Amino acid sequence: MIVVMDPGARKEQIDAVVNRLQKEGFDTHLSTGVSRTIIGIIGDKTRLTGLALEAMPGVEKVVPILQPFKLAGREFKPEDTVVKVTPDVHMGGKQVHVIAGPCAVESEQQLMEVAREVKAAGATLLRGGAFKPRTSPYSFQGLEEEGLKLLAAAREETGLPVVTEVMDVRSIPLVAKYADVLQVGARNMQNFFLLKELGRIDKPVLLKRGPAATIEEWILAAEYIMSEGNYNVILCERGIRTFETYTRNTLDLSAVPAVKRLSHLPVIVDPSHGTGKWHLVAPMAKAALAAGADGLMIETHCRPAEALSDGQQSLTPENFAEMMTELREIAKVLGKEIGGGKQ
Amino acid sequence: MIVVMDPGARKEQIDAVVNRLQKEGFDTHLSTGVSRTIIGIIGDKTRLTGLALEAMPGVEKVVPILQPFKLAGREFKPEDTVVKVTPDVHMGGKQVHVIAGPCAVESEQQLMEVAREVKAAGATLLRGGAFKPRTSPYSFQGLEEEGLKLLAAAREETGLPVVTEVMDVRSIPLVAKYADVLQVGARNMQNFFLLKELGRIDKPVLLKRGPAATIEEWILAAEYIMSEGNYNVILCERGIRTFETYTRNTLDLSAVPAVKRLSHLPVIVDPSHGTGKWHLVAPMAKAALAAGADGLMIETHCRPAEALSDGQQSLTPENFAEMMTELREIAKVLGKEIGGGKQ
Amino acid sequence: MIVVMDPGARKEQIDAVVNRLQKEGFDTHLSTGVSRTIIGIIGDKTRLTGLALEAMPGVEKVVPILQPFKLAGREFKPEDTVVKVTPDVHMGGKQVHVIAGPCAVESEQQLMEVAREVKAAGATLLRGGAFKPRTSPYSFQGLEEEGLKLLAAAREETGLPVVTEVMDVRSIPLVAKYADVLQVGARNMQNFFLLKELGRIDKPVLLKRGPAATIEEWILAAEYIMSEGNYNVILCERGIRTFETYTRNTLDLSAVPAVKRLSHLPVIVDPSHGTGKWHLVAPMAKAALAAGADGLMIETHCRPAEALSDGQQSLTPENFAEMMTELREIAKVLGKEIGGGKQ
Amino acid sequence: MIVVMDPGARKEQIDAVVNRLQKEGFDTHLSTGVSRTIIGIIGDKTRLTGLALEAMPGVEKVVPILQPFKLAGREFKPEDTVVKVTPDVHMGGKQVHVIAGPCAVESEQQLMEVAREVKAAGATLLRGGAFKPRTSPYSFQGLEEEGLKLLAAAREETGLPVVTEVMDVRSIPLVAKYADVLQVGARNMQNFFLLKELGRIDKPVLLKRGPAATIEEWILAAEYIMSEGNYNVILCERGIRTFETYTRNTLDLSAVPAVKRLSHLPVIVDPSHGTGKWHLVAPMAKAALAAGADGLMIETHCRPAEALSDGQQSLTPENFAEMMTELREIAKVLGKEIGGGKQ
Repeated sequence: MIVVMDPGARKEQIDAVVNRLQKEGFDTHLSTGVSRTIIGIIGDKTRLTGLALEAMPGVEKVVPILQPFKLAGREFKPEDTVVKVTPDVHMGGKQVHVIAGPCAVESEQQLMEVAREVKAAGATLLRGGAFKPRTSPYSFQGLEEEGLKLLAAAREETGLPVVTEVMDVRSIPLVAKYADVLQVGARNMQNFFLLKELGRIDKPVLLKRGPAATIEEWILAAEYIMSEGNYNVILCERGIRTFETYTRNTLDLSAVPAVKRLSHLPVIVDPSHGTGKWHLVAPMAKAALAAGADGLMIETHCRPAEALSDGQQSLTPENFAEMMTELREIAKVLGKEIGGGKQ
Repeated sequence: MIVVMDPGARKEQIDAVVNRLQKEGFDTHLSTGVSRTIIGIIGDKTRLTGLALEAMPGVEKVVPILQPFKLAGREFKPEDTVVKVTPDVHMGGKQVHVIAGPCAVESEQQLMEVAREVKAAGATLLRGGAFKPRTSPYSFQGLEEEGLKLLAAAREETGLPVVTEVMDVRSIPLVAKYADVLQVGARNMQNFFLLKELGRIDKPVLLKRGPAATIEEWILAAEYIMSEGNYNVILCERGIRTFETYTRNTLDLSAVPAVKRLSHLPVIVDPSHGTGKWHLVAPMAKAALAAGADGLMIETHCRPAEALSDGQQSLTPENFAEMMTELREIAKVLGKEIGGGKQ
Repeated sequence: MIVVMDPGARKEQIDAVVNRLQKEGFDTHLSTGVSRTIIGIIGDKTRLTGLALEAMPGVEKVVPILQPFKLAGREFKPEDTVVKVTPDVHMGGKQVHVIAGPCAVESEQQLMEVAREVKAAGATLLRGGAFKPRTSPYSFQGLEEEGLKLLAAAREETGLPVVTEVMDVRSIPLVAKYADVLQVGARNMQNFFLLKELGRIDKPVLLKRGPAATIEEWILAAEYIMSEGNYNVILCERGIRTFETYTRNTLDLSAVPAVKRLSHLPVIVDPSHGTGKWHLVAPMAKAALAAGADGLMIETHCRPAEALSDGQQSLTPENFAEMMTELREIAKVLGKEIGGGKQ
Repeated sequence: MIVVMDPGARKEQIDAVVNRLQKEGFDTHLSTGVSRTIIGIIGDKTRLTGLALEAMPGVEKVVPILQPFKLAGREFKPEDTVVKVTPDVHMGGKQVHVIAGPCAVESEQQLMEVAREVKAAGATLLRGGAFKPRTSPYSFQGLEEEGLKLLAAAREETGLPVVTEVMDVRSIPLVAKYADVLQVGARNMQNFFLLKELGRIDKPVLLKRGPAATIEEWILAAEYIMSEGNYNVILCERGIRTFETYTRNTLDLSAVPAVKRLSHLPVIVDPSHGTGKWHLVAPMAKAALAAGADGLMIETHCRPAEALSDGQQSLTPENFAEMMTELREIAKVLGKEIGGGKQ
């Protein structure tokens, strides 16, 4: 971290900053320029975040230099993390996994039907919401435990491991009982109590990026989970909020290679929420793969027009299968493969 | 709601939409234009949100016409809501209340000292964080119950009712035991389980706007609380996330008169988080008052440079007192008054 | 367009809106719902934009239904436009063209060297700035006509047609004398006098998306050029401005399939400006291709560290050649090819 | 400026950066931390912007320390600039000026009528557009020179100096012939050729903030004008583009005290474009005044519902007069006054 003093900062103000830092155990080095003094700080930078140096008299600004994360950072662990969901499904390596299924679990028939279809087309994980975060309290809120049971039954039949969202600290044990991967939704990305509790379970966590979260804040949210002991975190880009209204969100695919540079964690992409329009899903899924994503999450529904939520962004099984064929071709030239040989 | 069909939509596609709507109990009226057919929908619009009409063949888009909220909306209740925090402190009427205190409760001495100062300068509620949401897991996380006890002690001495944040559903009973107003932080604005639980208590809730939340989504979050029975919701604008980096957030003061038009709930402003720079707090507090805010929330610390969090945006007691003097003058010409006569 | 009246709108207010519309030659149809009246409008909608219906008493809002563009819209012209830059270089068809070269033309040697390199690696157009839009007046502003002459000389030697920016209406004749494609920079996307003048020349125009422009506004800027008679417009996505600061802009690749649905014009992508970091350029170029882009624009410099502008986002010839190899593979599986057979 | 090297940067990479800087005439100071080396740079920082240090091997990032502007900066000139529009109208001092009038000049009657009204209510400058920048080429584009003549005639009658927009470098002489203050519209804030030409005239320039411009870029645009010799620049905040759609833009009132800290130039606010809704104009005008604005720009029309543009955000003369009464009261308690004593 570097402290930039005001052009008119007095010597005693500069001394006060230096003394404060030394009292806290940091080494400092001063550099006196033509118009201003700059104070560099040496020591364990993570301890600095609590000091409100910008509030000290004569300080113009404090400029962070280092990445604020440790466990999630590539500096800390240079090699890629591979999250082992099951013995066959590893996220973060050569295999690119496609997680597919409906936005919400609505009924046994709806789920089983689509689960069979996506399995047949090459999906290697099943998604489906049992607890649904909805902007309006009057929208469908999910089947809750009944939905979890249906997901487990679908896994039983298809062999596909299950990814589902947990919204509430109190229901972590319940969701963990049925799910293979616990998803943190975008709106909960900075629900720190939820993150900490998920750091204490032994199942992988899929952490969606918040709609207003920078890449750095997103990786720091992963750090919350990891700092409690659970290192199996999969990041999921799902679009950020911008002024553009044609799409539901603006899918930030640059975040994929950016995260890969900053962190060792696997990163996947959800073009369904990222675009909000089914006809943009396949092009953006292909783009995500080409940008280096380790996986994709695709909303699929046998009859989108009857879906209880997000029908307008869901693919039909036919569209899904067509997209999978194209993805396989692209994966091949990238030296990757969709799903695993054993599936 | 209005359904706009594709220019090339076929008659059977139009019929299918109409049939679906009629099956769900809605009346429809068709309007056939030069290039497109438009279907208007009559009936209880809140039931429409679950239908994924945009996923039906031939549909170009669905245009919502009505506000999606009920209990929080001014159409539902035209007169202003006044939230009675204590017999003397009413939010939403002629009195403009200033909530002041430190970002985080750090120690008995720190809290008592600043509580006495803000009381003397005219603050009518005390704020202070016992549970702190921090971007990094390595930052100070708050004193927890010890902090709540100190807040209660400060109320005991100063008579100021206490506003403090609750971050976790599990700690609602604990926080409610000590606090007069429970605050939902910006990052939790769409933590729907937390909102629902707060809808079942009998204390006022201060609901901060999320950094990526539209005004409509913010009022819908209040609707979550109200739909469970708690009508005492105070909205708090605290800045949204934009491309501008000079300020921590972009304080959206237009939201104040906008909320007043759409909703009957009181709305206050937090210029400390809204700007992130102490020297912008007083000008923006005055601006918020002039824009029609029912209250202000101001971070204050006796020694900002030693604060464990947010020191750079905290006022000293001297700056706070000076600001209060200016606010009193402006309030007078607006036909309002700062704090209450009985304080 | 649809006019939504206030819940409390009186009959004479509704009549006033209907009368005004009929006076202007529109047919209207009224629909009286439970809480509100809605007025649909039939006729030539483009004439409606001038009427400030929202300012009439009793009007709550006006909801546009149709796309506001004509000549640029796919409804107007369903088949893809192919812009013929030269007999060999057609933008918008099966061939995907890569435009490469330095951000700014700096010297004969610098330009010739990189022009030969990108030609050898498969680029089919040469880019280079002679007039440079710079945020600070103290930054390098370009070689002006001298730069244009160097570009023409580089075309002479390599055969690559030249794309270069025109910033000022007064220099259109000069730039048009040397360039094959005239580029409108992002900051000038709504410089309407410049757009209109470019509508009167007979060379193709490359129109970059403004950093705060919606997809609709971008296509309307193309409409400005087309409405003056020049139909040879190529759209170029180059990132929008968001809160994310890790990248220079947020490259909005969803805009590629979105534009293809709304418009018949070719659309290319500039991942150099879109990301601002050279190490993100190749992944995002591949992603753009997979998303359906008709071309790419890549900043390339033989010694990026010595570049007078944008060095941090420029590829070296080696990185460029490597990226081209990967792009060729992906193009193949997409049924496209990079550059033309004759190159 | 500070250069932060990669954790793994080699000694020869560090030496290369230092050598390059020394060759360019800068002094450097090295600071070797636990994980990284940081290079501080001493010398004339404005010359650094051309060097692409981030493109050099081993460099992680370059962190700017100083403000990039000179003439417009408060460090360069600590006392406030007062722009003298006429002997009676000075912008930037104790008097707060209200610029009022229609969005577009439509006819002699329309302009004269509203000019008399706003003059009577206390406006001290008249605004009106003769050249209109419109998103669609099919919208009303202004009366051009005829409009300028009408503005001059209105000044003749009312004595109000005229503010009007210039969109095209070629029409600067024409606009300067009729106007007292030349306005640069938001979409042209980075039309650098226009800015430079306006730097060579001897009339004040009103520079609107671009919808995607940071405060720093806005002041740099003023620097473009000033660097050519015209120091009479008035800044105008008019809202930035964000995800919020209830308002046309998000009026960033924090920019007022922020600009006052960074620059000595006067800054005014346009709540009409900033909000896009007439019922938000008066509250935000009052807020802007309280935040410290040196003036206001208010769209006013005698019959907003018949306005050829922006009717929905225009005040009627009655609303305008009522707002002026409130502004006068607030100005008084702020130690300022609306308009001038002689008006």
